[in-house]
Amino acid sequence: MIKVGVLGATGAVGQRFIQLLSKHPWFEITDLLASSRSAGKKYRDATRWLIETPLPENLQEMEVKLAEPISLKNSDVEILFSAIPADIAKNTEVEFAEAGFTVASNAAAHRMDADVPLVIPEVNRDHLGLIEVQRRKKGWDGCIITNPNCSTIVMTLTLKPLMQFGIKHLNVATMQAISGAGYTGLPAMAILDNVVPYIGKEEEKMESEPLKILGEFDGDSVKTANFTISASCHRVPVIDGHTEAIWIEFGEQPSVDDVKLAFRDFKREIDTPTSPAIPIQLMKEDDRPQPRLDRDLGDGMTVSVGRVRSDVHGIKYIAMGHNTIRGAVGASVLNAEVLVKEKV
Amino acid sequence: MIKVGVLGATGAVGQRFIQLLSKHPWFEITDLLASSRSAGKKYRDATRWLIETPLPENLQEMEVKLAEPISLKNSDVEILFSAIPADIAKNTEVEFAEAGFTVASNAAAHRMDADVPLVIPEVNRDHLGLIEVQRRKKGWDGCIITNPNCSTIVMTLTLKPLMQFGIKHLNVATMQAISGAGYTGLPAMAILDNVVPYIGKEEEKMESEPLKILGEFDGDSVKTANFTISASCHRVPVIDGHTEAIWIEFGEQPSVDDVKLAFRDFKREIDTPTSPAIPIQLMKEDDRPQPRLDRDLGDGMTVSVGRVRSDVHGIKYIAMGHNTIRGAVGASVLNAEVLVKEKV
Amino acid sequence: MIKVGVLGATGAVGQRFIQLLSKHPWFEITDLLASSRSAGKKYRDATRWLIETPLPENLQEMEVKLAEPISLKNSDVEILFSAIPADIAKNTEVEFAEAGFTVASNAAAHRMDADVPLVIPEVNRDHLGLIEVQRRKKGWDGCIITNPNCSTIVMTLTLKPLMQFGIKHLNVATMQAISGAGYTGLPAMAILDNVVPYIGKEEEKMESEPLKILGEFDGDSVKTANFTISASCHRVPVIDGHTEAIWIEFGEQPSVDDVKLAFRDFKREIDTPTSPAIPIQLMKEDDRPQPRLDRDLGDGMTVSVGRVRSDVHGIKYIAMGHNTIRGAVGASVLNAEVLVKEKV
Amino acid sequence: MIKVGVLGATGAVGQRFIQLLSKHPWFEITDLLASSRSAGKKYRDATRWLIETPLPENLQEMEVKLAEPISLKNSDVEILFSAIPADIAKNTEVEFAEAGFTVASNAAAHRMDADVPLVIPEVNRDHLGLIEVQRRKKGWDGCIITNPNCSTIVMTLTLKPLMQFGIKHLNVATMQAISGAGYTGLPAMAILDNVVPYIGKEEEKMESEPLKILGEFDGDSVKTANFTISASCHRVPVIDGHTEAIWIEFGEQPSVDDVKLAFRDFKREIDTPTSPAIPIQLMKEDDRPQPRLDRDLGDGMTVSVGRVRSDVHGIKYIAMGHNTIRGAVGASVLNAEVLVKEKV
Repeated sequence: MIKVGVLGATGAVGQRFIQLLSKHPWFEITDLLASSRSAGKKYRDATRWLIETPLPENLQEMEVKLAEPISLKNSDVEILFSAIPADIAKNTEVEFAEAGFTVASNAAAHRMDADVPLVIPEVNRDHLGLIEVQRRKKGWDGCIITNPNCSTIVMTLTLKPLMQFGIKHLNVATMQAISGAGYTGLPAMAILDNVVPYIGKEEEKMESEPLKILGEFDGDSVKTANFTISASCHRVPVIDGHTEAIWIEFGEQPSVDDVKLAFRDFKREIDTPTSPAIPIQLMKEDDRPQPRLDRDLGDGMTVSVGRVRSDVHGIKYIAMGHNTIRGAVGASVLNAEVLVKEKV
Repeated sequence: MIKVGVLGATGAVGQRFIQLLSKHPWFEITDLLASSRSAGKKYRDATRWLIETPLPENLQEMEVKLAEPISLKNSDVEILFSAIPADIAKNTEVEFAEAGFTVASNAAAHRMDADVPLVIPEVNRDHLGLIEVQRRKKGWDGCIITNPNCSTIVMTLTLKPLMQFGIKHLNVATMQAISGAGYTGLPAMAILDNVVPYIGKEEEKMESEPLKILGEFDGDSVKTANFTISASCHRVPVIDGHTEAIWIEFGEQPSVDDVKLAFRDFKREIDTPTSPAIPIQLMKEDDRPQPRLDRDLGDGMTVSVGRVRSDVHGIKYIAMGHNTIRGAVGASVLNAEVLVKEKV
Repeated sequence: MIKVGVLGATGAVGQRFIQLLSKHPWFEITDLLASSRSAGKKYRDATRWLIETPLPENLQEMEVKLAEPISLKNSDVEILFSAIPADIAKNTEVEFAEAGFTVASNAAAHRMDADVPLVIPEVNRDHLGLIEVQRRKKGWDGCIITNPNCSTIVMTLTLKPLMQFGIKHLNVATMQAISGAGYTGLPAMAILDNVVPYIGKEEEKMESEPLKILGEFDGDSVKTANFTISASCHRVPVIDGHTEAIWIEFGEQPSVDDVKLAFRDFKREIDTPTSPAIPIQLMKEDDRPQPRLDRDLGDGMTVSVGRVRSDVHGIKYIAMGHNTIRGAVGASVLNAEVLVKEKV
Repeated sequence: MIKVGVLGATGAVGQRFIQLLSKHPWFEITDLLASSRSAGKKYRDATRWLIETPLPENLQEMEVKLAEPISLKNSDVEILFSAIPADIAKNTEVEFAEAGFTVASNAAAHRMDADVPLVIPEVNRDHLGLIEVQRRKKGWDGCIITNPNCSTIVMTLTLKPLMQFGIKHLNVATMQAISGAGYTGLPAMAILDNVVPYIGKEEEKMESEPLKILGEFDGDSVKTANFTISASCHRVPVIDGHTEAIWIEFGEQPSVDDVKLAFRDFKREIDTPTSPAIPIQLMKEDDRPQPRLDRDLGDGMTVSVGRVRSDVHGIKYIAMGHNTIRGAVGASVLNAEVLVKEKV
């Protein structure tokens, strides 16, 4: 078993990491790290566990450590999953990478750094080559690897099989679940019987991250993909699962059947515990995918698509994926698995 | 007071008509019409009243009549508001128009008929001229006038002030309230904690109706507007209020400020009881409009807009309006008011 | 017009006070008071307005004052509506009462004080006599008058007409709306698709306040009513309107018809702008009252009851009322109106 | 593997049976039966699958049979799980029992029949002795065994360990999930932002079924338990999980700790695939159990309790359980497992 730790273990994303990792066949949680407010406490006293499955017994009594490399002096931990806020992640993740740890981060802080891979394994596994560049340039033993923002992941995974048709421009309207805002991020009064047509920095992420992910890695750097994105992001009263309406203009306009076939033919190339057998599930029913019915496909790692239609400018369809699994902790864990499997 | 009746008085839309008309300063309800299942019963026994305000006392004992012109033989009713299903409306509305009544219809059946006006008074009041054409061609004493589909109205009202910039194409993603499906139209199990990315025939309506409404009336017929629309329609767990994310490509790209100014400068041209003082309200806050907070602006007749942004292809913004008031019964009543005021 | 002010004007309850008072026929808002965080700012900058009706124009530019009596040195204000948190209310309300102001408070701080009236005008208007006692004992020119907790008001109003049957014991289960927790009080993640079977201090309030309200005032003090209450309080995903299932054991068991008659015969004794013509509305339908359909009866001031049934031990029924209107700001304003009308 | 069939396979409860049985270690689905509307069709064409996990592949093509014993002429099926409406169940279940099949029914039709066992295995497994009585009196080869109504199961399981204290009377207020009404049973407009304080026949079931279940079986018949129940049943906007507030008066008043201990000490006596290791889970947190967080404990078969408090008359607490698993299909399957294990 490979020893792993969770940075920011007491928050909502940290709890999801623990839920996922505690039954992982390769990884064993040996360290839980958090801010000084929690450090020194037993984990069960430091957090308010709000997950549907019980807090694993062996972690209840584990002492939370301060999120500094020195805390891991006597630890065998190799990989750290980072669930800390972007502003703190900026320095903290660098410190751990310098100190020799592999940091698989869900935070936004380093996603767009030139030598940090921003990876969805089914899409751009070859970008992991950036880690060598990163280590060389920074002189680190460890490294930072990131996964994209939740909405970006759901959309970008479905763009990969369509790249063959020459994407020129896309519009996307999201209907995002409340869990994406964190446990206390959104007051009930703000969203019950309501839609909030604004999510801070979300449109900016959706308009930039996919271009890096779908860009070309030439052994030294990533050349950004050459199309444009315009996003409109909205919060709706759904617990989990981001739904996205996507319009694409292509260089060579494919037919609806071409697109369906591209989705259906899309296969994973690497088999690890968290990688879903079917990364993209094409739904046959007219009114699918739906978040409540389809978010748990592939244990929450499958993105489902449907309603592929053509219009005067191109193709439109619906994509939907579990934002806290495929779009967050599952994404980080999958990245780490691929690192392990490919011995990066 | 002008005597009016409601066709399809016992359904959800019929009840909303009654709610709105029962306090109307010009109109007095004298006749309630419905199918043979309800005809002959007292209104309060024929319907299950599901509106937040009580059923007006004077209507509780009114006998429901069968929805046939013969039922109105001894009635002074002039205007009939139609809330009947599209398939039944097809013949029934024609029968009443033939029999000399003005039918202000919320049904889809005749909206796209060449000589039936499809009207939003703030947008294309001049299309009322079609009524004369209609009467001449059909030989009717009465007439049929229609209002658009709920989602179409909300969007099209906001397009009017932007026509000056030469609209070439638009994409729209809707997040529509459940009340649009009728009281029993949508099971709770289908929509709680969920999004349904499909509404039957809704995209087709949104892609065709605006082109007729924004078309030019030359005294004899309407020449369809010359741009294209691609819609993606979704149901969300909201009671009332359709939210729409709109992207527009223009012939001459306006600035964000141009668009805001166009919204702000848009004024109503006719003052009737149901016409809102401010047809389009531009919201200043980043996260508005929101259905729960803004749907009742202008007693539900104001459409609110916000988040005007530019992108590489044009302009995007959010529009939101009350689907059962501005988008249905209020729209029909406003049409009738304008007919009365302009003595058509 | 009587000049009034709002203590705690920037919070959720303060905003509701402003909404209600800004169209009041007797009261004119001249002062808005809040903590040092807001004092000195224009009201529109000090608050985030989250009410469905727009912030009244004349208040937008009003400068918020610090919540101290000195701030009102040059003001003609007579009545202060208090929407401040209980812990701050403890001293602050006393300071304003000492300084000669009438404080109509929605806070819990002084409700159970022996010489502070806890009043629902339709129930125990005579308890206003405590104000004289209060002034005499404290030597204040002003006074403090309080209204009960939201759940207490809804239930206690319906108990008044049943007191004639000799209440011995009651159990009550509440299904309370989220607005009772304040705008940010409850995360969406806590309540969507969920019930929270606990509300801090709510059961204690429901078990004690009604006994004071229904107690006897002998000219000097209130003798607590002689029955017992056991409450179980729960939060449900409803915006506004508390629903309560109530079981009562009586000394002399009334029939279901006796109870219905008692509800139907219950009349208000005083006519002021906020007092509803029908304080208790008995619903005929089997499945009513329901919060979304019935909370706005009597402009939110009517409590509706239904499903009166008998069981082996007594009577059970459902009561429902608007928690932020009848249960909070409307209650305070109604109290102030009665004070004014009766020249206390 | 024991061959089993599902009666009423195409409805919401039927689908849940299929979901649960399709991964069952002892049972193999060989027959799907339904009304003449579905008979003769492939299962995937006869039903609209609305479960979060996919329709098992081997059942997609299975032909639905007419729900008559003759349909099973050439089948090896032994146990039939019944998910048919109560009015049809009345005769149909008898026909299958006469024809030699074991009918494990979730329908209400025969629950209160004197010689039909109404069983929760952890509570009254000995009532299975009624099957012999039933066979003897009716002359059947097969038999009918029933499980209680969903709300009854959740409550009654928690009453079992408290029977030692001599229950005299109880009041219960339920907050029931919408899935209990079937997929199309409840319009979204009826329950979003709402509570419906009425569920047809639910209070009657909760007031009678527990007395049979907790009654004494003397080898020939069940003597009803000697206490009284008064229920108030309410629908709330929750997908799955019934929450119940329960007040109990006892002959010998236990302390809060006595009750907690009784819950904690309650053990299952029989180990089968569907029986949960912990039938009753006592929650430590003040604000638990909650349906969204706790309904999946024990794969949906554990009932959780919390907030044990004392009042002047006795004890009050909260119980919560998954209504479609513990309260319906899981209950039937567990009953069948116990029959198999005990070779009844």
